Amino acid sequence: MSLETVLGEAKDIVKKVVPAGVDLTRVDFEGPVVVIYTRNIDVFADNQDIVRQLAQGLRRRVAIRPDPSLLADVEEAEEIIRNIIPEEAKISNIYFEDETGEVTIEALSPGLVIGKQGTLLNDIKKKIGWAPKVVRAPPIPSKTVDEIRQYLRSIHDDRQDFLRRTGRRISREPSPGEQYVRITSLGGFRQVGRSASLLMTRESKVLVDCGVDVSAENNGAPYLHAPELMPLESLDAVILTHAHLDHCGIIPILYKYGYEGPIYCTAPSRDLSSLLQLDYIKVAFGEGKKPPYESPQIRQAVRNTIPLKYGETTDIAPDVRLTLQNAGHILGSATTHFHIGDGLYNVAITGDIKFERTWLFNPAVNKFPRLETLIMEATYGGYHDVQPSRQEAAKRLKEIAKRVLGRGGKLLIPVFAVGRSQEVMLVLEELTRKGQIPRVPVYLDGMIWEATAIHAAYPEYLNNQLRTQIFQSGENPFLSDMFERVDSNDMRSNICDDPDPCVVLATSGMMNGGPIMEYFKAWADNPKHSLIFVGFNAEGTLARRIQKQAREITVNDKGKPLTLKIKMDVETIDGFSGHSDRLQLLNYVGSMEPRPERVLIGHGEEHKCLDLASSLYKKFGMETRAPYNLETLRLK
Amino acid sequence: MSLETVLGEAKDIVKKVVPAGVDLTRVDFEGPVVVIYTRNIDVFADNQDIVRQLAQGLRRRVAIRPDPSLLADVEEAEEIIRNIIPEEAKISNIYFEDETGEVTIEALSPGLVIGKQGTLLNDIKKKIGWAPKVVRAPPIPSKTVDEIRQYLRSIHDDRQDFLRRTGRRISREPSPGEQYVRITSLGGFRQVGRSASLLMTRESKVLVDCGVDVSAENNGAPYLHAPELMPLESLDAVILTHAHLDHCGIIPILYKYGYEGPIYCTAPSRDLSSLLQLDYIKVAFGEGKKPPYESPQIRQAVRNTIPLKYGETTDIAPDVRLTLQNAGHILGSATTHFHIGDGLYNVAITGDIKFERTWLFNPAVNKFPRLETLIMEATYGGYHDVQPSRQEAAKRLKEIAKRVLGRGGKLLIPVFAVGRSQEVMLVLEELTRKGQIPRVPVYLDGMIWEATAIHAAYPEYLNNQLRTQIFQSGENPFLSDMFERVDSNDMRSNICDDPDPCVVLATSGMMNGGPIMEYFKAWADNPKHSLIFVGFNAEGTLARRIQKQAREITVNDKGKPLTLKIKMDVETIDGFSGHSDRLQLLNYVGSMEPRPERVLIGHGEEHKCLDLASSLYKKFGMETRAPYNLETLRLK
Repeated sequence: MSLETVLGEAKDIVKKVVPAGVDLTRVDFEGPVVVIYTRNIDVFADNQDIVRQLAQGLRRRVAIRPDPSLLADVEEAEEIIRNIIPEEAKISNIYFEDETGEVTIEALSPGLVIGKQGTLLNDIKKKIGWAPKVVRAPPIPSKTVDEIRQYLRSIHDDRQDFLRRTGRRISREPSPGEQYVRITSLGGFRQVGRSASLLMTRESKVLVDCGVDVSAENNGAPYLHAPELMPLESLDAVILTHAHLDHCGIIPILYKYGYEGPIYCTAPSRDLSSLLQLDYIKVAFGEGKKPPYESPQIRQAVRNTIPLKYGETTDIAPDVRLTLQNAGHILGSATTHFHIGDGLYNVAITGDIKFERTWLFNPAVNKFPRLETLIMEATYGGYHDVQPSRQEAAKRLKEIAKRVLGRGGKLLIPVFAVGRSQEVMLVLEELTRKGQIPRVPVYLDGMIWEATAIHAAYPEYLNNQLRTQIFQSGENPFLSDMFERVDSNDMRSNICDDPDPCVVLATSGMMNGGPIMEYFKAWADNPKHSLIFVGFNAEGTLARRIQKQAREITVNDKGKPLTLKIKMDVETIDGFSGHSDRLQLLNYVGSMEPRPERVLIGHGEEHKCLDLASSLYKKFGMETRAPYNLETLRLK
Repeated sequence: MSLETVLGEAKDIVKKVVPAGVDLTRVDFEGPVVVIYTRNIDVFADNQDIVRQLAQGLRRRVAIRPDPSLLADVEEAEEIIRNIIPEEAKISNIYFEDETGEVTIEALSPGLVIGKQGTLLNDIKKKIGWAPKVVRAPPIPSKTVDEIRQYLRSIHDDRQDFLRRTGRRISREPSPGEQYVRITSLGGFRQVGRSASLLMTRESKVLVDCGVDVSAENNGAPYLHAPELMPLESLDAVILTHAHLDHCGIIPILYKYGYEGPIYCTAPSRDLSSLLQLDYIKVAFGEGKKPPYESPQIRQAVRNTIPLKYGETTDIAPDVRLTLQNAGHILGSATTHFHIGDGLYNVAITGDIKFERTWLFNPAVNKFPRLETLIMEATYGGYHDVQPSRQEAAKRLKEIAKRVLGRGGKLLIPVFAVGRSQEVMLVLEELTRKGQIPRVPVYLDGMIWEATAIHAAYPEYLNNQLRTQIFQSGENPFLSDMFERVDSNDMRSNICDDPDPCVVLATSGMMNGGPIMEYFKAWADNPKHSLIFVGFNAEGTLARRIQKQAREITVNDKGKPLTLKIKMDVETIDGFSGHSDRLQLLNYVGSMEPRPERVLIGHGEEHKCLDLASSLYKKFGMETRAPYNLETLRLK
């Protein structure tokens, strides 16, 4: 749809909806949103129904903005805002954006800024002309969230250009001819790592995830040189399901090789992935390897990200509409649903899913308006991959913690920074709060603190119960003073030497380096302490060797080999995984609405993908397939 | 391999093979051939073993040419040639090519020019310096063959440039990294028409066939806009299996949209396809449609064709070697065998195959040095698709001809110009020669004469028996004076009105227009005559309606409707098909050496592809699959 058509149609619709004299001064695209400028902003502020009708009529997301001539002077406007907003909202910052006529209000309690059903915001809008936008001031300061917000402000004009270009591209007239839908497996099929799927229609190309296989000998990238992906400029969109490196780790390289388009994901996925990508290149440098991209490309990825909320349907190409839904796996993780053509076809790609309510998240969504093909993960799709429940896992953690802390020992828990750490934190906080385990300090070392800060910045992505706890009872478990951040070598040494019981959560999760090693070296030979594995350990890692009963190991100690006798307890607690186990995967499909006609299986070792494919076929009679990497299937 | 490396290696090998002082002055690529210029041409002429050892050492096809300083004066050279060659060879033309130092000798009997084991040619080479090349002067003048030879001479320099560019591209250093083999179905899968398959490795892209579905409502082209094919410049090679429009009909369009590379096929496939392509655009113009390409693109296709002989293994990309083998289907039809990487993988694509000796051709080759995946046709792959033998078909033709000609009637046989016509001609010639049917004129109308002339120009592509008959007994059945070309409207009218018995072979094969209609209008109401169908008639064609017992039909007669009562006999003779029937397809795979691990089925209606896939799986236990169009399978 061209700009002129949109303007014309908007005027027609407005004419039908409001009495007369409403003046639309400009229409533009900002990414997938149609922005309409008007001199009669009050008419729209009074009547949200007009906006709804405009959106329905244009079949687009619509934003109404005041014509610049209506905007109050900045100083005056700020005073009005501070008068209207109650003090309890705790405004931490206000800034104005000339070009869009928006004012961003950063507050500790955004709900209080918005007011009941948006009344305060509407009031502000009417009085100052500027359109108010509310963002949460993070309760734990997050360097990542701060820097990203600052960066986005600093490149405001550039980003507006990008959004307009993207909007125009999405609105291009589709070429005529037979329509079809194809999916190409570019990585992460019959394997875990380097996830990448290319959805192709006659008109558009959409890449879903672009991860790295960190265990690979070579670069671990997906098959990005596949000719159907080339040139990268021909891609309409990149979608990121969640911020783990096996899904997001290679995305910045796309900007190195010519991609200039958008990334669609949730806001927390944007923030977490830039954190992990920066760490990924830091680690590569540290190991003397040349990283596949550098920080300018990570910044460009941030600049080009268009954040979406769960359930928000958005045009991403002339013939493709995307809706993200909660995947329950980590903060901001999403299942992608594509509606292609006007009723032509529907595809969903699960990303990684947890089909169980966890301490952090609601279970993955498996209800869609329509669905023909489902592409799903099979990490635990194997015949024997049944895991204990969340409750059983927590019970085991409680028992071990009681025993070890009770005897004056320490709990050392190697974890990944994102997901499992926060889950274990919540369990420990609850057990402590309820007096079921002794109250001891819980030290967070590595990126865990920063990742937790990002969780705290986006409480709307947590599960209902946790959200209620935070918003209504004002109890944010992440803010508990039992958690302490380890932020210096001295502090780490002190903790190692401290004789009192404590818990340490530290990276890396598989003990291939990171701060966890310092604690391990200090405590390994003491049978009072306990080392607890809560996640999957890959073959070849130190964690796997210890888990497999190695009782003497040699590690690198400042360049010299150091042999350690392991006398501390070694325990494994299953059931903390962010992945659905086999039964949950089967339930996810079994209770799906509507039941898909076809299921493609990926993200699992080969025999697990085949196991799951065959079980789904036998149980539900649907067509299933476990493609190889580099195959293309015709879906429609 | 770079030019410098080739020159260096060639010199090393020569050093090992010849005593000393052999001077190599220049090395260059001409398409897949390494051309070596030398001042000591006599050393090579005397010792063909050196050339063989060079080819083996370089792992390339090698041609040795004299250094230009050694070439005799043109007039003198021509005199020497005419003195050496015996008069019976019947030289029709001699022309010199400065740049390559080649002299082309066109003769009615090329064998006599060559001499026993090439003795005469070697003699000429030694005496004049020029490298003699022998081409056959066609026994029936073919406008197509003549024009193509003239055209190629006229663009000699241009073509040399093209060959050098192609040679350099083939010799590029392959990029490092994981190797793989993929195949994409771009057309002609689960359908007949618009055949096109894309073979992709990490390094190269090869398109096999690019046909048109002439029965399609729209343009009938394969999915050429598929992104894996784009840009067309990225293609390394186009291979044509044979000259039917459903395999060659769209090739010239590639040159319209940016392809500049080579087409590999047999020389008769080149000539026949340019004949059919020119006719295709003529027919489109005639029907008031815009053809998808014009004659300049057909000429470019001819310019860029690198003709290969059966069994000649040729590098077509840094990691792909192609060998064409006889497919038994039509003149010059080939099965393509790809050897990929150094022992990495082997794929064969059958094109259309006849696995039975016919009057014209040897049966399709099904022995390969190695083979993992076979991609095969399934035109007659359905459960009920068993056809009578060639002998039975000939017997029926004999009985009908005896009966109809005996009662003074005429035989009217609608045929396609290429393949079936020549088959029927041979049977009629043999029956007549042996006195089994009365000797009557056999009129050839439409493109049949020209297509037959092309057959006569390439006797080396005919079966052993026919070749022996032509070369050793000097009996070329195509030259029989019973065949008469219809070359004017007057002649056609006279034949229609002539009361004497005769046979007419005329196009189009399915009676949707063409000269066949004039004869049919003249003879339809006379029960003395007979209309004989020898091929497949598609649904919706006039031929199909008549075959299905329509006894009154309305045709277009110079713009007016004309109703015809059909009183002439209507007969169908099965068994003349150029396609293997179901049993032959099963035998082809069953007796294959080696037995492939995997068979992909295409070129057949959907249920026939599925029938054949399931039968091959059950009978031979190999993996089989019938891909949809636009799918990509990973072979390795």
